[in-house]
Amino acid sequence: MATQTSVTPNDTEGSAYGRPPATPNALLTQVGPGTPCGEFMRRYWQPVLASASVTTRPQEVRILGEDLIIFRDRKGRPGLLYPRCMHRGTSLFWGRVEDEGIRCCYHGWLFGVDGRCLEQPCEPEGGLQRDLARQPWYPVQERYGLVWAYMGPPNKRPVLPRWDVLEDLQPGEVYLANDKSWGTTRDGSMPITPYSWLHMNDNIMDPFHVQVLHTTFSNVQFVASFAVMPKVEFEYIDNGVIYKAYRKLDDGREVDRVSTYMLPNIMCVPNTQHEHGRGNSLAFVVPIDDSHCRIIGTRRTADPGNAYPPYLTNGKKWCDMTVEERQDFPNDFEAQAGQGPISLHSEEHLATSDKGIAMQRRMLTQQINLVAQGGDPLGVIFDEAKARVRVPSGNFYRDRV
Amino acid sequence: MATQTSVTPNDTEGSAYGRPPATPNALLTQVGPGTPCGEFMRRYWQPVLASASVTTRPQEVRILGEDLIIFRDRKGRPGLLYPRCMHRGTSLFWGRVEDEGIRCCYHGWLFGVDGRCLEQPCEPEGGLQRDLARQPWYPVQERYGLVWAYMGPPNKRPVLPRWDVLEDLQPGEVYLANDKSWGTTRDGSMPITPYSWLHMNDNIMDPFHVQVLHTTFSNVQFVASFAVMPKVEFEYIDNGVIYKAYRKLDDGREVDRVSTYMLPNIMCVPNTQHEHGRGNSLAFVVPIDDSHCRIIGTRRTADPGNAYPPYLTNGKKWCDMTVEERQDFPNDFEAQAGQGPISLHSEEHLATSDKGIAMQRRMLTQQINLVAQGGDPLGVIFDEAKARVRVPSGNFYRDRV
Amino acid sequence: MATQTSVTPNDTEGSAYGRPPATPNALLTQVGPGTPCGEFMRRYWQPVLASASVTTRPQEVRILGEDLIIFRDRKGRPGLLYPRCMHRGTSLFWGRVEDEGIRCCYHGWLFGVDGRCLEQPCEPEGGLQRDLARQPWYPVQERYGLVWAYMGPPNKRPVLPRWDVLEDLQPGEVYLANDKSWGTTRDGSMPITPYSWLHMNDNIMDPFHVQVLHTTFSNVQFVASFAVMPKVEFEYIDNGVIYKAYRKLDDGREVDRVSTYMLPNIMCVPNTQHEHGRGNSLAFVVPIDDSHCRIIGTRRTADPGNAYPPYLTNGKKWCDMTVEERQDFPNDFEAQAGQGPISLHSEEHLATSDKGIAMQRRMLTQQINLVAQGGDPLGVIFDEAKARVRVPSGNFYRDRV
Repeated sequence: MATQTSVTPNDTEGSAYGRPPATPNALLTQVGPGTPCGEFMRRYWQPVLASASVTTRPQEVRILGEDLIIFRDRKGRPGLLYPRCMHRGTSLFWGRVEDEGIRCCYHGWLFGVDGRCLEQPCEPEGGLQRDLARQPWYPVQERYGLVWAYMGPPNKRPVLPRWDVLEDLQPGEVYLANDKSWGTTRDGSMPITPYSWLHMNDNIMDPFHVQVLHTTFSNVQFVASFAVMPKVEFEYIDNGVIYKAYRKLDDGREVDRVSTYMLPNIMCVPNTQHEHGRGNSLAFVVPIDDSHCRIIGTRRTADPGNAYPPYLTNGKKWCDMTVEERQDFPNDFEAQAGQGPISLHSEEHLATSDKGIAMQRRMLTQQINLVAQGGDPLGVIFDEAKARVRVPSGNFYRDRV
Repeated sequence: MATQTSVTPNDTEGSAYGRPPATPNALLTQVGPGTPCGEFMRRYWQPVLASASVTTRPQEVRILGEDLIIFRDRKGRPGLLYPRCMHRGTSLFWGRVEDEGIRCCYHGWLFGVDGRCLEQPCEPEGGLQRDLARQPWYPVQERYGLVWAYMGPPNKRPVLPRWDVLEDLQPGEVYLANDKSWGTTRDGSMPITPYSWLHMNDNIMDPFHVQVLHTTFSNVQFVASFAVMPKVEFEYIDNGVIYKAYRKLDDGREVDRVSTYMLPNIMCVPNTQHEHGRGNSLAFVVPIDDSHCRIIGTRRTADPGNAYPPYLTNGKKWCDMTVEERQDFPNDFEAQAGQGPISLHSEEHLATSDKGIAMQRRMLTQQINLVAQGGDPLGVIFDEAKARVRVPSGNFYRDRV
Repeated sequence: MATQTSVTPNDTEGSAYGRPPATPNALLTQVGPGTPCGEFMRRYWQPVLASASVTTRPQEVRILGEDLIIFRDRKGRPGLLYPRCMHRGTSLFWGRVEDEGIRCCYHGWLFGVDGRCLEQPCEPEGGLQRDLARQPWYPVQERYGLVWAYMGPPNKRPVLPRWDVLEDLQPGEVYLANDKSWGTTRDGSMPITPYSWLHMNDNIMDPFHVQVLHTTFSNVQFVASFAVMPKVEFEYIDNGVIYKAYRKLDDGREVDRVSTYMLPNIMCVPNTQHEHGRGNSLAFVVPIDDSHCRIIGTRRTADPGNAYPPYLTNGKKWCDMTVEERQDFPNDFEAQAGQGPISLHSEEHLATSDKGIAMQRRMLTQQINLVAQGGDPLGVIFDEAKARVRVPSGNFYRDRV
């Protein structure tokens, strides 16, 4: 048998031998307490779960690298507490929710949603120093169908913005929240995605992958008109970046698709069926820890029954596909999980089409450094009267504008 | 939709933000070779398994952070050897037990229960220097239905104490040993518990959790009379700590429940049905490694068939319960596993009712430091004539004393 | 109950207490990029998979501590590329194989088997600087039914040797390759073995374990005549070590079994049924990473249908045996996995019968150090005219020589 060589014998260029070590962009991907990006993220209210997911049964949640317990007391108030009972450390996951809060199973200390200790049944007279005790807690509020937490410095607590795309509900409209990272597998089967928030965040200002990944590579995952390679312009807005993707469709119509990224991790993706109109939803790429995120979204709709239909590939939901089928028809999950738990940014070769990603990262870098230096980042609002935020997203057909 | 806030807007106290790093008490929880607590623990005989569990089939056991092989040779002698064959490192787990010891599968070296090398079949003349070879071993002995090992300095080997509650078996009485960590899940389904020995050890001198966890929180897990919050006195004894929990029952009877902790990890819990009489059992919280332990117990009984009935919650054994059912009816396992693999003691807030725990830990700290300084700890006995140890435990009804 | 002690009370020798820390031989077991053994291994062509295993479906392979993607383009050329797309880091595992190479799913960059970037569809004019881009790659070639890679310094690329036992195929003969680590479990069920390559490599020049492990301990796993303890001579050859194991069989016949180890990780084990004749196969102990290896072999045969019959123990394949059955009938897998993921060589006690292992390790150590000092190791050939290598293995019955 003759030797079969697949390569030019003397081609010694570009070998994988001796590659330098590769590293992630730590500034943008480390989100734990005390890290620059973690402190930056903590300056904004972050959604934790959909309101409907928060019940009288205690749940473990991880967010920004912190393990917490979320529950709703029997009077309806949501609470977000440090898990380890301040007394002897047993997790409040094993606690019992009562009218006024949650009671540790071990020695019965009762804590309100604000962490105040209300009972110490094994102590003399129910605990003479009970009022001094407080379980570590975070403030939470509910709006837009979501439970929001503020995990930053108490004296820097901002108001929750009023994004115009979610305000002024019309008769018949409701908010439909989703905390299952819908945008990755599109069947809700993997609520926490096993990779850095930055992978998904990078994806927001990346209109080109829609043409490849979602249209020409893996069949039409959204709509056929995305197969037209767009002309794209990126620009900064006050609190983020937008792109305008212009396409002239085969039927002669011209459409501008405007998509919005807002600090720190917010996207308003227009209707993915390419239908005319303004954006009607927001989604948040919430860091769970350095190597996991959860996409939490909410949208206004007058048709709540059909808001999140699972995407099917050859009739199958993602969770039912084999690895081989996922190789044949990859989607956002494969493209982003395929970058690893945390991508190795030092190896990247950003190109012309990555301009939006570069702009996002530049803005993030600036604002993270600003917070590290003691400043207040863009997009943080302290005055309720100034809470309204304009979001420019939409699909705008030129014959209808 | 109006904003719903669960907390007072300007309440900035007690936030979970900026918590300091929390740490375990390393002195009391690290048990590997060379650690202060590990060396302290090694000064006492420790039970490894029930005698009935040690057979001619080699088993892997971990104890005090060391992986070992336990077996019984075909003449009935238990052996506890370092697993890696001294010749080429193959685990004796794959060895064959013979009359005189265990033979490595790879090259056939045969070792006695005392580690002596008896055969080297591939060597000239069966191994001319065979007598110099010795597989690392620990001395073991059997008593009270248990196999005991001494893992400390050979010249400090004490005698095995003769605890009075286990001595002087009466006609018809036998020892019933249990090496399945019965006291945590109470169905034997998790023989090795996934948390530090100190969690369970702390539990010994904690009579108050019985009222909360075992009676008012999760239904009556032992007996209804435990719902009476006791008056408790703690006191040191020579080699440990005891508590006396006085209760006046609803029927007017008065009962003193005396429970005993002895160095280093020994408990004598009185009858948990609150029946009159002295203790008749001992249990040992044996550290497997820093984050695992195994509770090994033995009791004298004339009714061996019914010694360890599984505890049922709504008709279910623990191993059959869902997580939600365990949340609704937590038991010792949840309370202790809920402290994490190793609790973060720097965060604790010990209160009045934790006095016994504080006393135990103080005594442990003193004795661990004593050993580190070269001393012999309390409870270690070198003279068989002085081996008898009095154990004060029992439920004592005042009308019967 | 009287105390039963299994050991002499005052025997304090040889205790497992206070053992010193044990360590692997790092020089011989670390195989990642930049390590001395890793660089040494990279100077030789290494088999990656059987040719039949390399298809148009991308596969993840790990070799010498590097994660790579292997595939065959639709023109039949095998390719071995760094997995993370040089553009934005998505793994080419999710790529699509085309005529000319593999296309990343995210933004569609197309790479040839030599790493050249052929298309950048989202870039203006298809990528004006496309020719400068190159995905890190390794050269591969096919021969003897295997796909070979050269992962070393490009300017040190040798020729693939022509081992005489595999050359000059006779009419009717074919190569039968196996990449399932056949030699350990002998049923192909664990293609990647979970321990250091050195465990298996040590096994090559260890004729004595055949008598114990494979014959007298676990029944006859090869052939009954191996029960005769051989007289063994070891000797160096130019590029390795051989042994000659002389046996006088019960029927009076005399047989010399010659087995060959060649640098760096090559074995030619003669027919294991002890039949007369020269070796007709080679096997390579390919390091996957420090604690895993894959044995890849190929043999010439005129009977390809029956080349790798699974070995049965009491009628069962290894993968169907219980742990207890594996304890009763251990094989190479148990003996070698039983040394741990990486053996602790500092604890070994090599004896007379380990002479061959010592010779192999000495040669490896010398050659590894030679490469570290800039030299070319033994067994590396740069001139195709000198590529032929003589392999002395065989079973030679003296009445037939």
